Amino acid sequence: MKYELYYWPMIQGRGEYVRLALEEADVAYVDVARGSGGSSAMMRMMEKGGTPPFAPPYLKAGKLVIGQTANILLYLGHRHGLAPKTEAGRLWVHGLQLTVADLVTEIHDTHHPLGPSLYYEDQKAPAKKRTEAFWDERVPKYLGYFEGLLKGKGSWLTGRRLSYIDLSLFQIVDGLRYAFPKRMKNFESDIPGLVDLHDRVASRPNIKAYLASERRIPFNDQGIFRYYKELDG
Amino acid sequence: MKYELYYWPMIQGRGEYVRLALEEADVAYVDVARGSGGSSAMMRMMEKGGTPPFAPPYLKAGKLVIGQTANILLYLGHRHGLAPKTEAGRLWVHGLQLTVADLVTEIHDTHHPLGPSLYYEDQKAPAKKRTEAFWDERVPKYLGYFEGLLKGKGSWLTGRRLSYIDLSLFQIVDGLRYAFPKRMKNFESDIPGLVDLHDRVASRPNIKAYLASERRIPFNDQGIFRYYKELDG
Repeated sequence: MKYELYYWPMIQGRGEYVRLALEEADVAYVDVARGSGGSSAMMRMMEKGGTPPFAPPYLKAGKLVIGQTANILLYLGHRHGLAPKTEAGRLWVHGLQLTVADLVTEIHDTHHPLGPSLYYEDQKAPAKKRTEAFWDERVPKYLGYFEGLLKGKGSWLTGRRLSYIDLSLFQIVDGLRYAFPKRMKNFESDIPGLVDLHDRVASRPNIKAYLASERRIPFNDQGIFRYYKELDG
Repeated sequence: MKYELYYWPMIQGRGEYVRLALEEADVAYVDVARGSGGSSAMMRMMEKGGTPPFAPPYLKAGKLVIGQTANILLYLGHRHGLAPKTEAGRLWVHGLQLTVADLVTEIHDTHHPLGPSLYYEDQKAPAKKRTEAFWDERVPKYLGYFEGLLKGKGSWLTGRRLSYIDLSLFQIVDGLRYAFPKRMKNFESDIPGLVDLHDRVASRPNIKAYLASERRIPFNDQGIFRYYKELDG
């Protein structure tokens, strides 16, 4: 069985957390919407009966269709050695991933505080305000929390073995560096553990090969992480 | 073992989805922060070592501490007959709950588009814009999706048996009625299935007793669902 990932073909977005897990685990998958006719296949799936997903990303695993990024990682992590084996450990890592999901939403809201219906160009002033509040209070709260969890642990967030939350935190650091290069440069001395985690994830053989491949879509001005000079303080 | 729920004592908020599940399942629990000294007990828990939760709500179940609303429901649903028994069914309902979580965030953003750091009074104009977009596009998209899932099913969202997602959708309809009475009155004819589901949940014996008790905190101007006349169109 080959997994089928359905996600917007032009951006990393929320699908990237799933791609990183599939690549690290070295399991076979098709990034369906990036193939020819793939986008329309993705939309058709959302209109089918039974258990249609609400929005991409979703993963087809045989007959199963699993929606929501964190839910997909819950499923994959358990099957491919990217999550602790105990129930307590699985719930712990899943809760952390849901906290990353909340952070991702807040990152998106920095450039779209009035919601996804309007263009960035139509909400630049509120975006500036929201971004200031985000960097003043929310980034220190979220990243400070994860930095604290790394202290006194082994190499990875749950101890000696890498799990999908480590991959997701790599993506957060990588994305914040792209979207807010100046702000992030000033902030990184507060999160040495996360910066080190980022680098160690990036140098793992499967991730390194993925990042150097065409399968890794470059950051751009359509995704969650966007660089707008005026928001970088 | 008695469950311990930790959540802000003055609001329904995200804790309410957990309270509804605990009440429907008729399991013993303590709403810790509502007891004397409870709020400080809640804050202490977030500062402890090991696996501290990021934010309320979290549930203590023996030695387990589970954070994030949807994660708590994943755990409780499996144990207390509030979720399908198959893995496919459990993942399906969990994905739906995560979609409700996204909706709840967007509801909160209607009155706090510039983020949780500023008061509503300091973001009234952007709140008005975000609320318009929310009702024009997001409410029809989210509630239309759930309405579609109810068609041709049995009584409940997954068929013949109630699961925690039904309780959560009751809370969504109930909250939108409180926060946006005029807008919701105009919209309800588009979602007859959800309105009927709301009423059937409300009349279940355990839920009915809960809603009539002091354990149900009234809606107010501190929670997720807030009534601001100027946002009700």
